[in-house]
Amino acid sequence: MSANHVLALCGGVGGAKLAAGLAAVLPPEQLTIVVNTGDDFEHIGLSISPDIDTVVYTLSGLSDQVRGWGVADESWQAMAQLGRLGEAQWFQLGDRDLAMHLARTRRLRAGETLSAITASLAGRLGIGPALVPMSDDPVRTKVSTADGELDFQRYFVAEQCRPVARGIRFDGAEAARPSPGFAAALERGDLGALIVCPSNPYLSIDPLLALPGVRERIAGLAVPRVAVSPIVAGQAIKGPTAKLMSELGADVDVTGVARHYRGLIDILIVDEADRASAAQIADLGMTAVVAPSVMRSDADRVALAAATLAAAAIEIREELPTAGRE
Amino acid sequence: MSANHVLALCGGVGGAKLAAGLAAVLPPEQLTIVVNTGDDFEHIGLSISPDIDTVVYTLSGLSDQVRGWGVADESWQAMAQLGRLGEAQWFQLGDRDLAMHLARTRRLRAGETLSAITASLAGRLGIGPALVPMSDDPVRTKVSTADGELDFQRYFVAEQCRPVARGIRFDGAEAARPSPGFAAALERGDLGALIVCPSNPYLSIDPLLALPGVRERIAGLAVPRVAVSPIVAGQAIKGPTAKLMSELGADVDVTGVARHYRGLIDILIVDEADRASAAQIADLGMTAVVAPSVMRSDADRVALAAATLAAAAIEIREELPTAGRE
Repeated sequence: MSANHVLALCGGVGGAKLAAGLAAVLPPEQLTIVVNTGDDFEHIGLSISPDIDTVVYTLSGLSDQVRGWGVADESWQAMAQLGRLGEAQWFQLGDRDLAMHLARTRRLRAGETLSAITASLAGRLGIGPALVPMSDDPVRTKVSTADGELDFQRYFVAEQCRPVARGIRFDGAEAARPSPGFAAALERGDLGALIVCPSNPYLSIDPLLALPGVRERIAGLAVPRVAVSPIVAGQAIKGPTAKLMSELGADVDVTGVARHYRGLIDILIVDEADRASAAQIADLGMTAVVAPSVMRSDADRVALAAATLAAAAIEIREELPTAGRE
Repeated sequence: MSANHVLALCGGVGGAKLAAGLAAVLPPEQLTIVVNTGDDFEHIGLSISPDIDTVVYTLSGLSDQVRGWGVADESWQAMAQLGRLGEAQWFQLGDRDLAMHLARTRRLRAGETLSAITASLAGRLGIGPALVPMSDDPVRTKVSTADGELDFQRYFVAEQCRPVARGIRFDGAEAARPSPGFAAALERGDLGALIVCPSNPYLSIDPLLALPGVRERIAGLAVPRVAVSPIVAGQAIKGPTAKLMSELGADVDVTGVARHYRGLIDILIVDEADRASAAQIADLGMTAVVAPSVMRSDADRVALAAATLAAAAIEIREELPTAGRE
């Protein structure tokens, strides 16, 4: 048995793009994508899993690439009517997106696990690789701010990350178990690489690492462990990563990312713009590998996935499904 | 205090039209509309009250008068996506309509009564008269058929009333209480009339009469009690009333309606087409009053409401808001 299974840890938009690239270049049975659920919340009676939804929509091709979140060809009829009926308006619920929340909520209430529901819904939308929530137990990210502690979605969506963050905790993480799929992937005999997608280290990846046993297990993994930096040239590609890192006292550059993952990661993929940081990254005990890290097109995703897998010494399909090859 | 309060008992589409007519000609504080909840059910995790929704949409002007049910300017994006995700498709959930179910479901789960929720949502949509569910306790209409007993919506929507009905029961009715608004309206000192809207007597009105004490109270009311026949010239104006009456052994004409309401009603409003049945209706102990009973336009609703109230000796606003008056 060749050790070529790839375990990818993933948060929302940026991570989902790399996950889509990985799904494009690996046979589905060779890839497990574990997704953050610390952002999950209940809203208007619906169980919403924003990062799972982003990954599902991205991998199924349903995502709106212009807006940057949610479903393409979306409409907002329910939302407008919810407003007339006095329901909360701070979290946008598109009509197509609502179907996902309704199906998930119904099935959770019927007693299915989030793992089973996610696998089923992803399969319905044609997604091949295993898509796994980090846990079937509730973990809720809370952000301590100058305005008090906020639920993640309140901080992220309603407050648009404006309050200064002082700390983050993952409520419920100590009592939560890694999902069966996550736990099994970490123990696979054919595990060939761990990939940390370019998601927010503090908000999207730390929740996974906060689950009992996960950090220790990853620290002890003998396979190549590769992270892709979500910071390029001192800027976050997407979202509040840079602001948050700064507020939490980290260096807002690739060395800050490297320091955060120290002891867990062997290789850090950095953009060409950060080539000069390679020596500092080496001082932190990991190897910097340069690859274009800003994913604007589907071809960018595939190229970054290929570079990441190459760094991890995982062979990929010879014929990449990139556009423009002739 | 003049005894001029009007208590209207109402089911779905036909009843809602007369209720809208009553709302157009009476000051809001003079009208209480009690709505059947025997059709209520849970679907894809949502608490759906079809008759309440029909009355709310009709009175708020949101209803789709072409389709005959649901909300105008409706779209079906969530429904299509729910289908892709493997959720049930037999009950249509429009995007705008979904907002109502979401708001109601959230508030029920938060512990509010259906009465409080209905009053609040109706008020949000600008409805003036008191809109009251028949009960805050669950009552579920079940139809015995040759194919076994069916939940009402299964019989009505999924099976489109095709199975031959052998009987109807209202599960939970014995243990349910009339809602506070219904109970209070029946005991009002200023009650001036009871009006039974032209809804299906067996499916839409009988559930209200099955609640403990209601039939007895109505039988003992000293005020004019007026029903509008949902059967015109041996045909149901809408829905399965005629087929159902026939299967249950009733005469499918206005005398069948009169016989069903015997002892509860003083006056039966019948269409011009049924003028010849007046003597038979008199033999059943009630007075037939002729009025055009097919409501095609808003003006028809107002005219039938005015005729119904006139039969009950309730004075109405002098200036009717009908179209075409000059």
